[in-house]
Order: sequence, then structure tokens, then C-alpha cells
Amino acid sequence: MSKKLTTREEDYSKWYNELVVKADLAENSGVRGCMVIKPYGYAIWEKMQAELDRMFKETGHENAYFPIFIPKSYFSKEASHVDGFAKECAVVTHYRLKNDENGKVVVDETAKLEEELIVRPTSETIIWDTYRKWIESYRDLPILVNQWANVVRWEMRTRLFLRTAEFLWQEGHTAHATKQEAIDESKQMQEVYATFAEEFMAMPVIKGFKSESERFAGALETYTIEALMQDGKALQAGTSHFLGQNFAKAFDVKFTSKEGKREFVWATSWGVSTRLMGALVMTHSDDKGLILPPNLAPIQVVIIPIYKGEEQLNAISEKVEALAKVLRNNGVSVKYDKRDTYKPGWKFAEYELKGVPLRIAMGPRDLENGTLEIARRDTSVKQTIAIKDTVSFVQETLETIQKELFKKALDYRESHITEVDSFEQFKEVLETKGGFVSAHWDGTIETEEKIKGLTKATIRCIPNDVKFEDGICVFSGGKSTKRVLFAKAY
Amino acid sequence: MSKKLTTREEDYSKWYNELVVKADLAENSGVRGCMVIKPYGYAIWEKMQAELDRMFKETGHENAYFPIFIPKSYFSKEASHVDGFAKECAVVTHYRLKNDENGKVVVDETAKLEEELIVRPTSETIIWDTYRKWIESYRDLPILVNQWANVVRWEMRTRLFLRTAEFLWQEGHTAHATKQEAIDESKQMQEVYATFAEEFMAMPVIKGFKSESERFAGALETYTIEALMQDGKALQAGTSHFLGQNFAKAFDVKFTSKEGKREFVWATSWGVSTRLMGALVMTHSDDKGLILPPNLAPIQVVIIPIYKGEEQLNAISEKVEALAKVLRNNGVSVKYDKRDTYKPGWKFAEYELKGVPLRIAMGPRDLENGTLEIARRDTSVKQTIAIKDTVSFVQETLETIQKELFKKALDYRESHITEVDSFEQFKEVLETKGGFVSAHWDGTIETEEKIKGLTKATIRCIPNDVKFEDGICVFSGGKSTKRVLFAKAY
Repeated sequence: MSKKLTTREEDYSKWYNELVVKADLAENSGVRGCMVIKPYGYAIWEKMQAELDRMFKETGHENAYFPIFIPKSYFSKEASHVDGFAKECAVVTHYRLKNDENGKVVVDETAKLEEELIVRPTSETIIWDTYRKWIESYRDLPILVNQWANVVRWEMRTRLFLRTAEFLWQEGHTAHATKQEAIDESKQMQEVYATFAEEFMAMPVIKGFKSESERFAGALETYTIEALMQDGKALQAGTSHFLGQNFAKAFDVKFTSKEGKREFVWATSWGVSTRLMGALVMTHSDDKGLILPPNLAPIQVVIIPIYKGEEQLNAISEKVEALAKVLRNNGVSVKYDKRDTYKPGWKFAEYELKGVPLRIAMGPRDLENGTLEIARRDTSVKQTIAIKDTVSFVQETLETIQKELFKKALDYRESHITEVDSFEQFKEVLETKGGFVSAHWDGTIETEEKIKGLTKATIRCIPNDVKFEDGICVFSGGKSTKRVLFAKAY
Repeated sequence: MSKKLTTREEDYSKWYNELVVKADLAENSGVRGCMVIKPYGYAIWEKMQAELDRMFKETGHENAYFPIFIPKSYFSKEASHVDGFAKECAVVTHYRLKNDENGKVVVDETAKLEEELIVRPTSETIIWDTYRKWIESYRDLPILVNQWANVVRWEMRTRLFLRTAEFLWQEGHTAHATKQEAIDESKQMQEVYATFAEEFMAMPVIKGFKSESERFAGALETYTIEALMQDGKALQAGTSHFLGQNFAKAFDVKFTSKEGKREFVWATSWGVSTRLMGALVMTHSDDKGLILPPNLAPIQVVIIPIYKGEEQLNAISEKVEALAKVLRNNGVSVKYDKRDTYKPGWKFAEYELKGVPLRIAMGPRDLENGTLEIARRDTSVKQTIAIKDTVSFVQETLETIQKELFKKALDYRESHITEVDSFEQFKEVLETKGGFVSAHWDGTIETEEKIKGLTKATIRCIPNDVKFEDGICVFSGGKSTKRVLFAKAY
């Protein structure tokens, strides 16, 4: 397979699809809309999981596991939820196959379920059905639980990581005695997500909350983190929902307060998914391949020997293996690729495609001089340094790369938030420059829908730090109290 | 809920079910046969996962993720596999729900899948369909991949952890250029499982291989680790399969060898599941509750203050928090439970039920004397020691407990392997003493089935280190070359 990619300029969407496959992140499977996450892609996801899981635990959460199947009737209990989720989903109707008279494997019609089971698209219903058994009094609250799981939503148009029928995610589901505590929890998790996105993914995000029509089905408030991709489209990277007492009421979950009263429990839910992998790819990568932030790179440094004959390879390997050991002891993940089945040029292109932050090459002249050549993936800058200086150089450079990737993405994002005061300007900015458009809006769902119909742009969020000011809606001319952020989005 | 359990002697099976629920490990859900793994149970599973994952990676494996759905036709490609697995399974037939004329949520009959999808009972078929795309030449081999996932098998009689419709597991799937390499891999993974069971679960296992009729559907050889529960029944704790070229042939997976020939690829698969949680519970626990080996205990030491009034609590807390910090810095996981909503007696019973290896109590007299009381969960032995000696005492005692739990289980197992030379004796041992029965067997499936029909005992394994010797089958009187291990099993 050629390592050459379609360029972003030629066809951004094609560039993305090719990159995900060629860099060994994921590929389509034989099952419509379901992807295979390949080892290299999964290694990045594991690093994401590890950091998020640590952050969840540091904020007092525990993991648990709930069934993948949800009885159909559970969905009907929360009216807006069933409309939002349960309709486009995989439905299990039978529990047995058999051989027919020709020996063909067919569904056994006698093994039909009394009630159909839905493969979970999200777990609020099954979890709140469980919480009813767990919650008796205020002593049982709060419940701070997270689940790492697979979920299924029957998407018609799928794209690797961004929109797949099955995806991996985490879903936090918490239960609280008071409204304020639940609101604080949902805001806290938005902060956790933002910190993760910025410090690990090097991806700047805008923290905000959703307009009513963009809220999670069943939520009173949806907090979101919104990122901007290199093609000027926004990507919702994580959401945290204040669910009020909706699910407690639907599943009859009450607790006895300290004062002895029976009250409904307050709820939140929050999640991020393998969609973050798509966001990571589109935030930093270039026409040569992936660019990974060091904090999430499965391989931070790859070392490639340049040699003729076994004797030279052995001499180089001795040096490299000693160096690799020291680097590993200093917390750097290193791969030494001395396979003789591939040439150095092939390897250079391979690790470029895979976004390894630093590449070290060592040849016979380096051996004589006690040096090595080190190249940055993000800037392509090469330097020859003394072997003895490698550890500190690598550590510092990895930190620099992490910071500079964030800075570069932030500069791009900052230069792509445009204030507009007319609908003409609104459309023009969307069509030419892209990015976020900051505009006054009259607060109605009608206007929101009309704008979406005409431009494909949606309200990504009302920023947490929104300034309230009198204004005029760019579309309707009606009264507005604040600017909100519109964008075309993934 | 009362913390008192049915005793093992009264009703072993009831004791187990009660313990799993009361110790907050798992409970039944609203979905038939599917369990909820509660936070405390999941924390133990996470510790198991972490150690296994480390061991897999140390032996060169990487993680990946494959779709949860498998097209029905994939199963038909490997004949014995479909009989073994695909029949009792959840079948997805539709992908949409709708509201009927009465507003009721029903399956949308127009959204019927052309080909039904099976919720994976195991992933050989979807994975080998993928490997065909990954493997071109010897350079692409070996593939050493593992997946952490949920699977579904439509069991009719389910029990928490031991047999559930959905369970969590890992499944390794490897591809090799030679038969020997695949055999070595499957044996290596049996060793990894045995090491994990013995060093972390403190559960002795017999390493062996299965008779033909007990093999995995599609395997040429199934290596197993077999444990013995306190009621004298065996439990298959992990299996590793040498699959020959069966799946490569079914999915047409060939590679070009170094010599330029096209050859079918050799395969293994291996797995352990949340069933290990059941094994862990039944190996060590007693009538007061769980007993957890320190290497897998989410809380290794719980500290409970005994106090009157806030002033005393504060004085105790000051000491305890300093101590807890030092213990944590030394790698000990500590919980300080100073909740005022529960009394010390309630807490003692709670942590006994949950199997926390060491309990420290500190009261006002301890404060005066600079001492604390420390109690072992497994032996109930209490000791008063100086606070300053706590760290080394705790570390040593945790190691001692880990060793002694293993020793105790090993002694029990060793005294429950009985050699018998007649079928009368065979039946008597099974009925009275239980455990493994070591007996000569004529090697035929017929005899195996008849014995199973009469006694419910199956051949658990032929031990790896079996001695070949001439003998007479206990059942048929036919010729035998070796003793094999029979037992009733979970």
C-alpha cells in the first residue's frame, strides 16, 4: 500500500479517511458501520482511557458495569429519551439459530423474545432502573459511577471514529441529594474533559452549554466542549448533562432525606468516546501523516539504525540499546526498529505516517563521533547531537512539542472565531473562512432551524463565559441578549 | 439488608449467591441472565485486568477492538464452530423502532436487516475475516492481538459470574507462520494464566489439556487451567486453544513464506472471563463473607476509628491520616472510614463481609499508648502493635496472607485428588469426598459420555505432566495408557 496521502487541500475528507487507514488506526469491518480499531489506534485510545480514568478516580468516581441489553419498555419511560435514542438502534428479537432442512443456518422462529431487547445506545434507563435498588436514604448518596463500554447507534452515514454504528466510550452516571450538587458535578466533568483535551490531546476547546434543541434527550442542561478542526468545522468533543429529576421520576428513584422526607434523586450523565480519536487526527496531522502529541503517543521516540552488514548493525545496536534503556528509565517510550526486512527510507516514511514525535537515526559516522541525528515530526527540523545529551534533549523536546502543538491549534482556533452582525456576513464567513461565527440570536428554536436549513451551521454552544449585551439577531432582527457560537460541525 | 449469610454447610450454592450480592460484587439486572457488576466487584475485576494486561504485553501482545456484531454467514464457514457457539445467541434482526397508532413503541418491520447479526459469543470468525486483509507475507506474522470485550451466550440457567448471558472477558487471537510457533504460543498463554491464578488469585490450578469432546469448537487442542472450589467441584478457570489452520482455511487466510510459497496461517485463541470472580469468591471465602488475597484486594487495609465525640475523632484522625499517607506511599491501598452515619460494629461486619485483608482499629487508649489494633480477615487473629511499627507489619502480614491463602487452597486441592481403580470407588469418592478423581480411561468418547450420564462427572483434563502407564479403564475395563482427572464441575 502506498504511504502517500491525498492532500488536505485536494480533498480534506478523503485525506482523513486515508490517513486513519494507512496509519493503522482503524478500518471498516465486514459489518456495516462497525469499525475495527487496529493495535496502533487502540494503543492511543488506551492512553486516553488511562488518563481519563485517573482523572475520574481523582474526582471520586468508581467504575461499574451494566448490561448491554435494555428492555424496550425501559425507553418508553422517559419520553424525550426514546425519541432521541431508542429509534435508530439494533434490536434483538431472537435468541437461537438452527439448521433448516437444507442444513442452512437460520433464525429459530420458536425462540422469539417476549420483549425485544435494544443494544444500548446509552445507559441512563438501565442504570436508573438499577439505582432504584441502590438508593434508600441520603446515606446512599451521592453515587459517583462511571462505565467503560461499547454502545450502538444505527447511523446511516458512518465515518471511521467520527460516526460509527458501534463505538467505545465512557459514560458517567451520578445520583445526588440536591439539585446544586448535581449541577456542580456536571460542571466539574466539563472541566475534567476540557483539561484532558487541552493538556493531553493538545486540543483547545471552548467550554459552553447547548441551546435547547441541541441538548441531550432527557437533559435540562448540556455542557459541552467544542473543538475546531483544520477544515474550519467544529467537533463536539465531550458533553456533560444535568438531568434534573427526569430519570428519577421515570424510574421512581426516591431517597429519605436527613429530615425524613421522601424526595426524588438528582442526576447527571457525561461521556466521551472514540470520536476523540477522530478529533485528535484532524487537529494536528498534515499531508505526510499523523502528528501525535507526545502525551498520547504510544511510541514517543523511534530509533532507526543506518548500516551496511551485520557487524555495523551490532555496533549500532549496542549503543542504541543502552540509550533506549536509559530513555525508558526516564519515562520515555522508545521503539528500536532494527528489522532487516525493511529499508531505512521505508521506516522513515512509516513513522512519519504514524506520527511518532521524535525519530532518531544512528549510522556508522555517528558511531565514530558519538552522535545521533534527531528529527521532530511536527516541524521536520533535524539536529545532530551528542549521544550523552540525548535524554535531556528528548525530554525537553517532547515537552516543547506538546506545548507548540497546543499553541498552533489555539492560534488557528483564535483566528477562526469571527464576530458578525449581519446574515450576509454570517454566510460569507461560513463559506470562505469557516470556523466559529459569533452572532446575536433571538433565542428561538425557529430561527436556529432556519439558519441550519440555509447554511448547515448549528449553534455549537453558548460559551460559559458569555457576556450579556443587548443586540439584534442576525437572522430575524429580533432582540438578543448575547452572542452565541455557530459553526458547521462534524 | 442483614449481613448474615447462609452458611456453606447449610447450602453452598445459596451461600455463594448471597455473598456475591451482599458483598456488593454483582447483582441480577432487569435483563434476563445479565448481571450488573457493582463498583466493589468491578474494582477487583480491574485489578485482575491490570495484571493480566501487563502479562500479555510482557509476552509481546497488543490490544485491539473488533465489532460486537458478526454476520450470520460468518459462523457457517467453520462447521464445528457454528454448532458449538452460534446457536444459543442473541440475534439482531431489525435496526429501528417506531411508534404505532396507539403511540406504543414497537419494532419497525420495514427496518429488517438483510442478513441477521449475531452478538458475538466469541470473535474467531470476525477476527479471521479481518486478518485476511492484514496478512500478505511472512513479514506480517506473527500477529499477537488481544481484545478486552463483552460477549453474549444465551445460557438458560444463569448464576452471577459463573454463567451469565453477557460476560466480560479477554480473548487473544494470534496468527503464526508455523505450527510449532502456534503450539508454543497456546502453551505459553496457559502458563501465563496459571501464574496469574496462583500468584494473584492465590488459587492453585492444574495445567492440562482437554479430551476431544471437551475441546473448544474449532480447536485441535485446548489447554486448560482447572481449579477446585471448597465444595469439591472443579472450575475451568481459563483456556488456550491451538486452532491449527481451521480458521485460516474457513476465511482463506494465506501468507507468502520466505521461500515464496503460499501457505495457510496457523492460529491460537485464549481467554479468561469474569467467571474468575466467581472462582475467587469460592476458593477463599468463609461464612462471614469474602476473603480476598491482598494482591487483588481493592482495599488492603481499612482503618476504623473508635471514638466518643468530635474531639476524640479529630485526635484519632490526625494520627490515622498521617499513617494512611505513609502506607500509601509504600504501595498499600488504605481506606479510612470515619463516617459518622455508621457505628464501628456495623463497619467491622461490613469490611469482614467485603474481605478486606487487614482491619485497623484505633481508639482513645491507643492514642494514649501510641498503639493500634490490627486484625487479619483470614484468621481473625488480632494484635496490638505500636503505630511506628505499622508499615513493616502491614507489608509483611499482607505477604503472609497471600502465601497462606494459597497454601491453604493448595492443601485442600492436594488432599482432594483421589486415585481410584474401580467404578464403585469412583462413584463413592465423587459422592462423599468430591474433588478430582484420577482414573484410567479407555480414551473413547462413549465411555466419557456414559460416565457423565451416570455421575455428572466430566474429564476436566489430562494433566500436562501425565505419566503414561498401562492400566484398565475404570468404567469399560478397556485398555488405558494414562490416568485422567474427572470431577463434577461448574
